[in-house]
Amino acid sequence: MSLTESVLEGNRLALARLLTQVENDLPEGRLALAELFPHTGQAHLIGITGAPGTGKSSLVNQLALHYRKSADKKVAIVAVDPSSPFTGGAVLGDRVRMRDLSGDSGIFIRSMATRGSLGGIAQKTAALVQIFDAAGYEIVIIETVGAGQSEVDVARLAHTTVVVEAPGLGDEIQAIKAGILEIADVLVVNKADRPGVENTERALRSTLELAHPTKRVFRHHGKTMAISTPTIDSTIWIPPINKTVATEGKGIAEVVESIAKHAAHLRQSGDWAARDRARLGSEMEALLREALMERFLESVQSVKYEEMIEQVVNRNISPHEAVKSLLNGKQV
Amino acid sequence: MSLTESVLEGNRLALARLLTQVENDLPEGRLALAELFPHTGQAHLIGITGAPGTGKSSLVNQLALHYRKSADKKVAIVAVDPSSPFTGGAVLGDRVRMRDLSGDSGIFIRSMATRGSLGGIAQKTAALVQIFDAAGYEIVIIETVGAGQSEVDVARLAHTTVVVEAPGLGDEIQAIKAGILEIADVLVVNKADRPGVENTERALRSTLELAHPTKRVFRHHGKTMAISTPTIDSTIWIPPINKTVATEGKGIAEVVESIAKHAAHLRQSGDWAARDRARLGSEMEALLREALMERFLESVQSVKYEEMIEQVVNRNISPHEAVKSLLNGKQV
Repeated sequence: MSLTESVLEGNRLALARLLTQVENDLPEGRLALAELFPHTGQAHLIGITGAPGTGKSSLVNQLALHYRKSADKKVAIVAVDPSSPFTGGAVLGDRVRMRDLSGDSGIFIRSMATRGSLGGIAQKTAALVQIFDAAGYEIVIIETVGAGQSEVDVARLAHTTVVVEAPGLGDEIQAIKAGILEIADVLVVNKADRPGVENTERALRSTLELAHPTKRVFRHHGKTMAISTPTIDSTIWIPPINKTVATEGKGIAEVVESIAKHAAHLRQSGDWAARDRARLGSEMEALLREALMERFLESVQSVKYEEMIEQVVNRNISPHEAVKSLLNGKQV
Repeated sequence: MSLTESVLEGNRLALARLLTQVENDLPEGRLALAELFPHTGQAHLIGITGAPGTGKSSLVNQLALHYRKSADKKVAIVAVDPSSPFTGGAVLGDRVRMRDLSGDSGIFIRSMATRGSLGGIAQKTAALVQIFDAAGYEIVIIETVGAGQSEVDVARLAHTTVVVEAPGLGDEIQAIKAGILEIADVLVVNKADRPGVENTERALRSTLELAHPTKRVFRHHGKTMAISTPTIDSTIWIPPINKTVATEGKGIAEVVESIAKHAAHLRQSGDWAARDRARLGSEMEALLREALMERFLESVQSVKYEEMIEQVVNRNISPHEAVKSLLNGKQV
């Protein structure tokens, strides 16, 4: 039996091996990925992101357990962890997780501690997610740390993006400024037993209201007038805010419900297909860029390329001119 | 007089206009950039990064003022701000800054609120930095928010990267896990009048010691032996930790000194040229990737491209196969 057949039949060992092959970008991995691709498109891809210290991983564990117990769904977790090499965060995280989730064959956890180019991480994450999707995991959770662009890019892989906040992580305005709210489909205030939870929730709510006004008011000739109370557009999704204490399993069912409602909204509005198309389109574009660069470097003499860099370093020509010159030397 | 000549002569209006042209990727901007490029390579490029809430912007303002007053150097600040469009952080930030730094013709501040592709941000930042460099700004500060990959990429543009921390921003271990220490040449604990400053400093110091061991110890046959107390390698730079209260201007001179020492170290060890080469090399590579993609999209029929995406969305072929098919249809 081929590796892909074993994966499709639910063989965990085969799955683990394939994930490694794909993560290491081996040719057999790429081949298997192509074979598995027709079997994808079934899973609900859930991105979960938030700053360090929000208790994101505990929340992910609890969600996974909930999907297992209440809905008997197979759950995969892809943890994208830009850990430092000397703290070894990813490995440690896995060990802690094993304790909670081990022994359940319906859960599969994979950490990607890949450092390196951003495009590389997003591409590999996309590939791992596709493998889990094809292997019959109905829920695939993509967990990322932080609020940087890399997380935004990874979140674009998901149908539903959950942003986790927690009280006391510094100035709420700052957290909002990071722009992460724009990618949130569901907001979770974790550690909701801590002081300051009301402030965090209020800050989130007022930012949401700014972003999704249901009633706009403006000043006109010194009088305050409501312009309109627009009819609620059923195609507009306003991210709900859920409060949880993940370490105690509190509020998890509500988050699962919010996620399910969002999925229903996506399907009803046609956004599910639109997100699918956008995701696959940008994946294709990234692969195309890689392939074009690879082809080009194969075709150009490395001595010529180095020579150009040298010219740029010596400020004889600008990087733009160097690229133009490299391309003009080629019959493309 | 041409725009580039005006910029080289120190005309601020011309400079502002050119920056806008380059930020908007206009052809005249690209042309000017090529003309200015031979004049670059003089400035000390300083990256300053840190999580929201660390008081990074106040620190940047104070550093700029210090370079003006104590060394009479021209200072440019490029603030890369991935702000949300509805909070309008960048504009607000600029206004607050104007108050502190306005009226000084030796300081130029430019915010880039550019959202969009990461590569795009890093490339445009590189271009703006080159313009300031050519225009005679001896110190160019690149300020970025957060600890994500985007910040790491932007920091790669700098000769010296300063990472700002502050007490009470949550778990120190978490901050370290974000891997930002790896890019730090100088560490600053700002808000050093706040409680918890010792904890923050201690956590930073012990992580630094892990990363830069001066004495390695290992267990061998049950005995603990020191292998070596290596002679301190003068080419190794261990990031100093400075404490500041930026809002009161405290500790700024020490940070400036650390930055100057780092620059001296770079020049002495040959790393200045190496960083220069790496930066320009990766800039060239990014431009090349863009150009290759542009050329390709011009050469392929958009209907053919859309057709391929359609096939992928319908799971008939995988993204990899689609790319292969697109490339094989072309005589590259």
